[in-house]
Amino acid sequence: MDLDALRTAHPDHWKMASAIRALALDAVAAANSGHTGMPLGMADIATVLFRDHMSFDPKDPEWADRDRFILSNGHGSMLLYALLHLTGYEEFTIEQLKNFRQWESITAGHPENFLAKGIEVTTGPLGQGISNSVGFAIAEESLRARFGNKLVDHWTWVFAGDGCLMEGVSQEAIALAGHLQLSKLVVFFDHNSITIDGPTSLADSTDQVARFEASGWHVQQIDGHDPEAIGKAIEAAKADPRPSMIQCETHIALGHAAQDTAKGHGALTDPDQLAAAKEAYGWTGGPFEIPGDIKSMWEATGERGVAAHKDWQGRLEATSAGKRSKFEAAMSGEIPNKLTSTIRALKKQMTESAPKLATRASSEKALEVINPVVLETLGGSADLTGSNNTLTADLGIFDAENRKGRYIHYGIREHGMAAAMNGMALHGGVRPYGGTFFTFTDYARGAIRLSALSHAPVVYVMTHDSIGLGEDGPTHQPVEHLAMMRATPNYVVLRPADAVETAEAWEIALLRKNGPTILALSRQGLPTVRTEHKTKNLSAQGGYVLAEAEGKRQAILMATGSEVSVALAAREALQAEGIGTRVVSMPSMELFAQQEESYRKRVLPGSAVRVAIEAGVRQPWDRWLLGERGREAKAGFIGMDSFGASAPAGELFEQFGITSEATVAKVKELLG
Amino acid sequence: MDLDALRTAHPDHWKMASAIRALALDAVAAANSGHTGMPLGMADIATVLFRDHMSFDPKDPEWADRDRFILSNGHGSMLLYALLHLTGYEEFTIEQLKNFRQWESITAGHPENFLAKGIEVTTGPLGQGISNSVGFAIAEESLRARFGNKLVDHWTWVFAGDGCLMEGVSQEAIALAGHLQLSKLVVFFDHNSITIDGPTSLADSTDQVARFEASGWHVQQIDGHDPEAIGKAIEAAKADPRPSMIQCETHIALGHAAQDTAKGHGALTDPDQLAAAKEAYGWTGGPFEIPGDIKSMWEATGERGVAAHKDWQGRLEATSAGKRSKFEAAMSGEIPNKLTSTIRALKKQMTESAPKLATRASSEKALEVINPVVLETLGGSADLTGSNNTLTADLGIFDAENRKGRYIHYGIREHGMAAAMNGMALHGGVRPYGGTFFTFTDYARGAIRLSALSHAPVVYVMTHDSIGLGEDGPTHQPVEHLAMMRATPNYVVLRPADAVETAEAWEIALLRKNGPTILALSRQGLPTVRTEHKTKNLSAQGGYVLAEAEGKRQAILMATGSEVSVALAAREALQAEGIGTRVVSMPSMELFAQQEESYRKRVLPGSAVRVAIEAGVRQPWDRWLLGERGREAKAGFIGMDSFGASAPAGELFEQFGITSEATVAKVKELLG
Repeated sequence: MDLDALRTAHPDHWKMASAIRALALDAVAAANSGHTGMPLGMADIATVLFRDHMSFDPKDPEWADRDRFILSNGHGSMLLYALLHLTGYEEFTIEQLKNFRQWESITAGHPENFLAKGIEVTTGPLGQGISNSVGFAIAEESLRARFGNKLVDHWTWVFAGDGCLMEGVSQEAIALAGHLQLSKLVVFFDHNSITIDGPTSLADSTDQVARFEASGWHVQQIDGHDPEAIGKAIEAAKADPRPSMIQCETHIALGHAAQDTAKGHGALTDPDQLAAAKEAYGWTGGPFEIPGDIKSMWEATGERGVAAHKDWQGRLEATSAGKRSKFEAAMSGEIPNKLTSTIRALKKQMTESAPKLATRASSEKALEVINPVVLETLGGSADLTGSNNTLTADLGIFDAENRKGRYIHYGIREHGMAAAMNGMALHGGVRPYGGTFFTFTDYARGAIRLSALSHAPVVYVMTHDSIGLGEDGPTHQPVEHLAMMRATPNYVVLRPADAVETAEAWEIALLRKNGPTILALSRQGLPTVRTEHKTKNLSAQGGYVLAEAEGKRQAILMATGSEVSVALAAREALQAEGIGTRVVSMPSMELFAQQEESYRKRVLPGSAVRVAIEAGVRQPWDRWLLGERGREAKAGFIGMDSFGASAPAGELFEQFGITSEATVAKVKELLG
Repeated sequence: MDLDALRTAHPDHWKMASAIRALALDAVAAANSGHTGMPLGMADIATVLFRDHMSFDPKDPEWADRDRFILSNGHGSMLLYALLHLTGYEEFTIEQLKNFRQWESITAGHPENFLAKGIEVTTGPLGQGISNSVGFAIAEESLRARFGNKLVDHWTWVFAGDGCLMEGVSQEAIALAGHLQLSKLVVFFDHNSITIDGPTSLADSTDQVARFEASGWHVQQIDGHDPEAIGKAIEAAKADPRPSMIQCETHIALGHAAQDTAKGHGALTDPDQLAAAKEAYGWTGGPFEIPGDIKSMWEATGERGVAAHKDWQGRLEATSAGKRSKFEAAMSGEIPNKLTSTIRALKKQMTESAPKLATRASSEKALEVINPVVLETLGGSADLTGSNNTLTADLGIFDAENRKGRYIHYGIREHGMAAAMNGMALHGGVRPYGGTFFTFTDYARGAIRLSALSHAPVVYVMTHDSIGLGEDGPTHQPVEHLAMMRATPNYVVLRPADAVETAEAWEIALLRKNGPTILALSRQGLPTVRTEHKTKNLSAQGGYVLAEAEGKRQAILMATGSEVSVALAAREALQAEGIGTRVVSMPSMELFAQQEESYRKRVLPGSAVRVAIEAGVRQPWDRWLLGERGREAKAGFIGMDSFGASAPAGELFEQFGITSEATVAKVKELLG
């Protein structure tokens, strides 16, 4: 590249872009770690976007109607931190840039939304950001339909790299965005043709332009270092009714000795090469130093949105009080107080009618009363609507024609669904929930983990939660998935036993503001085990005494979900033989672990044998079987230690020995 | 559809296809469960393929040079079972079809390769089969390059549905297949435009023809019920040097009242509708009954491959003894005896030189001696070659030009890589291993689980196995992944502590024939802890005493991987204070659990406090901390209970308290 020509053609632009490049070089060098090449390659695009097009106000990073900027190629995090610093986001001081990738800095290796305002979403695992962005754009459309374009009218801008587009989740995302015609979504594809292993030609020959076009996108190809071309492309993208992809031909590590090489992807810390690159840019500032004229231009960029923000504030103030309070409540993530009384009424009704219902059907009953009260819910399923019981009558379908719909047919795209839901939750104003079979947690794990890490209040409606799904067989039968999810930090995993616990589980899930919830629900019908009405949400304690021992307490049975009724049947048989047996329902181990030790000891006192019953692997149970004063000689497990099999559900429970008879036998064996 | 016209145009073809349809209708009705619509829709394609093109011999389902048939839309399993029955695969009796989806039948809800010969791969989770098929085609190309086309020259045929193509993993697979120009791979896309939720138009607008073309495929569009068109398309696919996709316009549940509807996707069991469908086909046989003339036509189809098989056998016998034995050893999955002496020599060298090496680098050292001895290895990485240390000097790159290469640049496609490796392992003749960061297990979980379920001996080289990766931060730091993988049935998870254990881990992995292995390897340098040479593979015991207590044994420290040296340092400090401390290295909990109880008790006797140290969550440790005669009051854990953070690795271990000092303090606290 002829840098001089670029500089001469657009001197002010060049200076501004050079500021990003200089800061990226300095911060990576200071950390001796990071990725320099992407910020050097995308600085021109970022400069044009932020300077001339993006609507934002650094003084109020949480302005509801700001444009959203998603850095899908999150390893280039210094690009984002440089932009936030230069445009005047308060938290992003020069000290923070100097502490790039250090303990307790907000400038982590990859952008982490929970560390500072201005970072919209946690990225780094490739393909996530572009897939989150679909959720951001859906949330914007949905809120615009609900509150009107005076309050909601913003864009979602995405930077994505070759790696993002190689990841399969990106195909799910672009197909969904194209289908839904999310016209306010614009992706800049950093087409530098370099990955870690070398040129992309080592592993890829895909024509991305044709691929996006095949999914209904508006596509342009431009020189990613030409500010005029970038600006024109943005205008054209805005004018087109389809989502837009702008393939930007760029040079990774522009102007550095490592330009256009795989080395350029990583940390460029050689001091001489660094100095040479700065010289090539014509950069005169010292390390972490921005010359005054360039600083001013960036400050002006940061102030450009103030007027638009003010106008918007005026429109908000002119909005009727009722509408405004609804809008503000939605954006704050508050759940209407009415939810609690609604859930209580449902619990009462369920206790009284005591239906035999699959918990997935109980979940539908809960949604039927929740969705009319919590108008922020945006439901959906990865093509298992009838099986996941996720669609209620009042929602309507969200699609290209109907933005007021509150239900999304995600197609057979579990990963794309989860990533989109993360985007919706982090956009704010909507509360996404989505369903698939519990075993397909596997397909969506990349995004499911990020729900927890990024504090996104997503609700996963995971049905068919065990061998109880029957004939579809081991490919569809989760066995290790409860263990997986319980091992994942910041998850609440709830496996309710009946319609009452399912209602409680939904209340818990919706009241969570800082993290995701997994509901593990049965395919098969389950009897009502909570036959006495309690207004209190007992499931919120994680575990509680469901049935007390009569006579001397010799055994404690713990169970979740479909196995709670197995435990109750075992208790009945044991009591008939004079063996006092308590049953503890344990819908959520995480919530139980959060209770006071005294409560836990009351629920699980030491002086009895313990048997846990769950149609999954034992791993998460050892703590409750053996800990809290238990001992191995006094503890047993009834569950799975292999994959399942294809047969009717009843037969599977028999064959795998998950029955009340087996439980009774285990208790007796432990009692000796 | 005008069935009469179809029948009249090709009467014999129609009869044969009707046999598949009748069996699918009968079996699903008998099971009252399953998916009828796909077999009814794809019967014509299957009939043409099996009758006129596919090379197979039902008398020898494991004939090495057979064509492979992959049912990616595995819910249509009755199509496969019907074909296997009709063409004469011995195990697929009519009784088995009558027992579709019943306990211990081989006719499971979805095809399970380990239940019977003739089923190549376990499918059902959508998108897997088409992605496995890329591995099958790679294995064929690789073996052909190694052994010549007299011994290896076969096709991989795939049936895939809308769901398979919506799953992101399919994009990874088609991009890879197009890039590698896998010309002997042919995919029939069942374009029936119906999914479970309804018409595909609910969720998708992708032009699949354009999408496959964008990835370098040869694409055709045909009427999937016209046998002539199907035959011609197959010929054209074979003639083209690219992988081929044939988009077949079909009618789901053809001829049934539920034709072209979402209901048609599922179990069609209504007896009147079933009878009407059979009548529309002109079907005269009773339930599970095949009229003699049709039976004969299918038997002839089953015998068509006998001559080709015989010819091939002649060519095998004419092959030189040396080449033949190498070919047969490769196909049998045998690992050369020389591996053991090779590993021993490496261990001796590592013990003597006692390097400080990251275990990922130790893994490279192991591969450097393994790859020249085990010529079946096919290595690769999802664009982290230099980080995963997976490429050794002698391998060469497998690409469109060089089929002799033994290393694959998979691109940033973890899921596609894992699925392709499953395909390679199940094809046989090659031993795939592939690398990525351990945390990206999440991206590949869909296929990683199927490695275990389908008994595929795949080796996952998962580096950067903890917060020890440092600055990249929590998105890249596994925390729950050891727990996840240990919870998954049929996995061996190995987290070696040094170069010696890493060599042992590779030996264990390669000697596994019936399941996958995960190697969790450090980014950071680790000292050699096995300073005394033992020829025996100690890691194969799962856990063993690495350092004995001096004096009275008061504490046992258990650790894996990078934390073993932390345990040793803690032991030194404790011993200095007179506290006798044993260190147990536990590279694999699964292997330790498989040892005799007497061995386990010798390693973990009851009379000492126990502390486990591992930079992951506690969940899998409770068994070893609390079980085997331990008690909570005497057990502690030093590890993670949250996500990690972005900072240099050394600081992270300090901040999260995973240090010898913290271990010493915990032991003292427990001793009181």
